[in-house]
Amino acid sequence: MNADFGAPKELAGGLQQRRALYQPRLPPCLQGPTVRAEYGDATTTIDPTCAQAVAQAFPHTFGQPLVSFVAPAAGAGAVEERHPIRVGVVFSGRQSPGGHNVVWGLHDALKAYNPQSLLYGFVGGTEGLFANKTLEITDDVLASYKNQGGFDLLGRSIDQIRTTKQVNAAMTTCHSLNLDGLVIIGGVTSNSDAAQLAETLIQNNCKTKVVGVPVSLNGDLKNQFVETTVGFDTVCKVNSQLVSNVCLDAISAGKYYYFVRLMGRKASHVAFECALQSHPNMLILGEEVALSKLTLMEIISKICDGVQARAELGKYHGVLVIPEGLIESIPEMYALIQEINILHNSNVPVAEMSSQLSPWAAALFQFLPPFIRRELLLHQESDNSAQLSQIDTEQLLAHLVETEMIKRTKEGRYKGRKFSSVCHFFGYQARGSTPSNFDCDYAYALGRISLHMIAVGLTGYMATVANLKDPVDKWRCAAAPLTVIRCH
Amino acid sequence: MNADFGAPKELAGGLQQRRALYQPRLPPCLQGPTVRAEYGDATTTIDPTCAQAVAQAFPHTFGQPLVSFVAPAAGAGAVEERHPIRVGVVFSGRQSPGGHNVVWGLHDALKAYNPQSLLYGFVGGTEGLFANKTLEITDDVLASYKNQGGFDLLGRSIDQIRTTKQVNAAMTTCHSLNLDGLVIIGGVTSNSDAAQLAETLIQNNCKTKVVGVPVSLNGDLKNQFVETTVGFDTVCKVNSQLVSNVCLDAISAGKYYYFVRLMGRKASHVAFECALQSHPNMLILGEEVALSKLTLMEIISKICDGVQARAELGKYHGVLVIPEGLIESIPEMYALIQEINILHNSNVPVAEMSSQLSPWAAALFQFLPPFIRRELLLHQESDNSAQLSQIDTEQLLAHLVETEMIKRTKEGRYKGRKFSSVCHFFGYQARGSTPSNFDCDYAYALGRISLHMIAVGLTGYMATVANLKDPVDKWRCAAAPLTVIRCH
Repeated sequence: MNADFGAPKELAGGLQQRRALYQPRLPPCLQGPTVRAEYGDATTTIDPTCAQAVAQAFPHTFGQPLVSFVAPAAGAGAVEERHPIRVGVVFSGRQSPGGHNVVWGLHDALKAYNPQSLLYGFVGGTEGLFANKTLEITDDVLASYKNQGGFDLLGRSIDQIRTTKQVNAAMTTCHSLNLDGLVIIGGVTSNSDAAQLAETLIQNNCKTKVVGVPVSLNGDLKNQFVETTVGFDTVCKVNSQLVSNVCLDAISAGKYYYFVRLMGRKASHVAFECALQSHPNMLILGEEVALSKLTLMEIISKICDGVQARAELGKYHGVLVIPEGLIESIPEMYALIQEINILHNSNVPVAEMSSQLSPWAAALFQFLPPFIRRELLLHQESDNSAQLSQIDTEQLLAHLVETEMIKRTKEGRYKGRKFSSVCHFFGYQARGSTPSNFDCDYAYALGRISLHMIAVGLTGYMATVANLKDPVDKWRCAAAPLTVIRCH
Repeated sequence: MNADFGAPKELAGGLQQRRALYQPRLPPCLQGPTVRAEYGDATTTIDPTCAQAVAQAFPHTFGQPLVSFVAPAAGAGAVEERHPIRVGVVFSGRQSPGGHNVVWGLHDALKAYNPQSLLYGFVGGTEGLFANKTLEITDDVLASYKNQGGFDLLGRSIDQIRTTKQVNAAMTTCHSLNLDGLVIIGGVTSNSDAAQLAETLIQNNCKTKVVGVPVSLNGDLKNQFVETTVGFDTVCKVNSQLVSNVCLDAISAGKYYYFVRLMGRKASHVAFECALQSHPNMLILGEEVALSKLTLMEIISKICDGVQARAELGKYHGVLVIPEGLIESIPEMYALIQEINILHNSNVPVAEMSSQLSPWAAALFQFLPPFIRRELLLHQESDNSAQLSQIDTEQLLAHLVETEMIKRTKEGRYKGRKFSSVCHFFGYQARGSTPSNFDCDYAYALGRISLHMIAVGLTGYMATVANLKDPVDKWRCAAAPLTVIRCH
C-alpha cells in the first residue's frame, strides 16, 4: 500500500493552486437543497439478444426503471428530517482526469444531506476495499485534490471485483462498515463488476447500495444513457495538443514520419477525436480494420502508398495516429495471439512456443521483427488481454513500412529519399493531467448524483448526465440500471 | 524541399488565433525610432587557453569590442536618411519555440529602418541558403506565424555551414542577392559556423555582415553574454508539465517506475531545470556522471538502492529523469563508442564489428541488451555524434535495473514486489509547442537587435539581451563577438 495515499499535498505550482479555486458549475436539479427522483420506463439490455441471459443472471436488478432527478416543485414543503448516511468510494480503473471531483461532489452532497454522514475512501483501490483499508474523506483531506488530476487521493490497484473471493471480501467490508452505499468509479469492466456486486449483495441481504460512475479516459463506455466518460475530454485535449506539436515538428524538419499510438485500449475513440482536433496526415481506426478485415500487410501497403504519394510532392514528413490496441483489430494478428494464448493456457514454456504454432501462425510470427515477437510471448504470460495494449504497434508499423519502402526502392518503384520514422506512445502524460472545466463539472455532478441515488435506495445503477453538449444549465441528471450495459 | 514552407497557414484553433494577437513587449532601447550603438571593451575567448589559437584563426573578427544598444539621448536630432537594406535569414538547428519571432522582429525593425528594405528567408534551412532558394518575408507571410511554434515558415535541413563547399555556396548566395546582412538562427554549432563564415566573408571582400541569434532548446549556449537561448523556457515548461503529469500518474497507480529521457543533447540543462520544476524522485546529471567517472553499473546500483529504499516504505513507483545524451557521459560507454567509431572509419562492416572490439569493449558490448547493441552499431553509421542522442538510454537503464532487481531478489537481498518500468522520451512534443510569453518577447527583441547590428556594420557578432530575469523594461540589448564562444 502506498504510504502517500490520502496525504494532504502541497499544491506546488500556481496553476495547481489556481485550479483548486475553481468551483464546478451545477446543473439546475442539483442547485437546491433537495432533489426529487422520477421513475420512468423499465429497461432491458442495449443488445436485445442478451436480454434473456442477463434477466436470468440478474434476477433482482434486471429491468429496473430509468430514474431522473429533478428540482422539487416550488413550495414543495420543508425538507424532511434525514438520517446520517454511510458511504464508501473506490477507484477501480486506469486513472482519468476528474476522478477526484467525483469524490468531492459525493462528499459535498453527503454532508449537505446530513452533516453527520460519513464518507470512507478505500485506500489502494479495490485491494483496499477487500482489505477494508479506509480513509475518512473530509473537507481537509479534499482541499488539495479539488480539480486536480490523478487518482492519488486514494490510489488504485487491480481494478476488479470479479472472483467469488473478491466479491465476498467486498461484501464483508460493506457489512463491517455498515455502509448504506458503495460508489465504484471506473470504466466498462468496473461498472460491469459493479452490476454483479449489486446483484450479489441483494441476494445476501446486504443493505449496501452499489452505484457506478463512468470514469475512463478510453471513452468506450458510451451508449444511449452515457454520453461520455469523465476524463475523455481532458485526455483528448492534451493528446491533441501533443499531436499538434508533433505535426508542427514534422513539417519544420521535413524529414521524419511520426507514428503516434494513443492510449485508449482497443477502441479508437481517443485516436478518432484527437485526429479531428489535430489533423494528422493519417489515422488508422481499429474498428475499420476489423470490419474490412485488413491484413497487416494491407495496412502497411496503404501507409507506403501515402508515403510515396507525398514524396512525389516533395514531402518527406508526416504524422500517423493509431489507437493503443490496434493490434487486436488486425485479423491475423488476433488469430496469432489466440494461438499463443492457448499455448500459454497449456503451460507450454515460452522458449518452445514458436515451434508449436500452426504453420501459418508460425510463418506470421517469424515474419514479425524480434522485439514484437518477444512482446507477444512475454505479455501473454500474464494472461491479461489488457497487456496486449502494451505491444509497441507503432514501432511494428514503422519497422514494416521502412522495410517495404526499402523493397520498393530496390525494385525501382520508389525513387524518393530514405524513409525515416520516430515513434511515440502518448497516454501516461495525458491521463495524469489536470482536468478540463468540462471534466471538473461533469465529475462533480456525477458525484453528487451518486449520493442522491443511494439516498433513494437505488442499487445496480450508474450515475448519468444527459445533454452534455449543451451548457451546464441544460444538463439533466439521471440514473440508468447497470444491467443495460451487461451482455451475458 | 518541402512544398509547405512559407505557405500561409490557417490558424486552426482558438489558441493559435489568440496567440497570434500577442504583441511582444519591447525593452526600452528598442521602443524609439532609432537606437544608438555604444562600443565597449575589446574581447577575447571565454576559455583563455584558446585565445591565441582563435586570434590566429580569426584575424579579422577576433578581439572586436562588446557593443551595447541604447535609446538615443532626448533631442538627439532628426533621424538621418537611411538607405534600404537587404538581409537574409536562415534557420540552422533543431526547431525551438520562438524561432518565428526572431524573423518577425527582424522584419519589423528592417521595415522601420526603411520600408524599401528587403528580407529574404532561405527555404529549407542551410540547404536553401546554399541553393539560393528564397521566400520574401512580408507582413502577409508573417501573419500566421507570429508567436507560433515550429520552424515551418522556412524549415531547416542539415544545420551546418562548415565545409569549404558549404561556405562557398553560402558566400555565392550572399553575393548574388547582394545581401547587407545574413542572420543565422541556431545553437552552439550554428553560431560557431557563423563565426567562421563571418571571417571568410571578410577575407573574400564580401560585404555581407553575419549575425548569429541564440535559439536552441538545449540551453547549452550559455555564457557571460548569453543568459539563455530562445526556446529553453518554453521547452522546460512543457516538459515539466509532462513530467509532473507522469509523477501524478506514478503515485496514482503506485506500480511503475517511469524512466524519462528529456531532449537537450549531452548537456543536462533541460533535465535539471525540469527536475527543479516538477520534482521527480531521481535526476541523473550527465556532467556529474562524467565528473565522478561513474560507471554504468554504479549508476544502476544507485538507482536500485533507491528502488529498494522506497520498497521498504511500501512504495513501488517513482520517476527518474535523465538528459538525452547521458550515454556519452558514462566513461566506459564513451570509450566503447569511440572504438566503434574507429572501426566505422576503417570501413569495418557492421556485422564484423563486435568481433574486432578490444577485449574489454567486447565484454561491455556483449553485456548490453540486444536493442542497445543494434542502436550503437547502426547509429554510428552516419558518423554523426548527434545521432548518439537517439540511443534509448532510458530503456537501457530500465532494463539493467530490472535485471539487477531480479538478481537481488534471487539472492534474498530484495524482498519487495517485482520492479516494473515504463519508458519515455520527451522532446518532439515539447519543441513543437507554442512559445511562452518570455520566449515570444526575447526572440522578437533579438530579431530587432539583429537588424541594428547589421545597420551599424557589425559582423561575426551574436545578438544578446541581458537582465532577462527582470521584467522586460529592465532588459539591456547588446551584441557580443562570436569569437568569444569559439575554442580553436
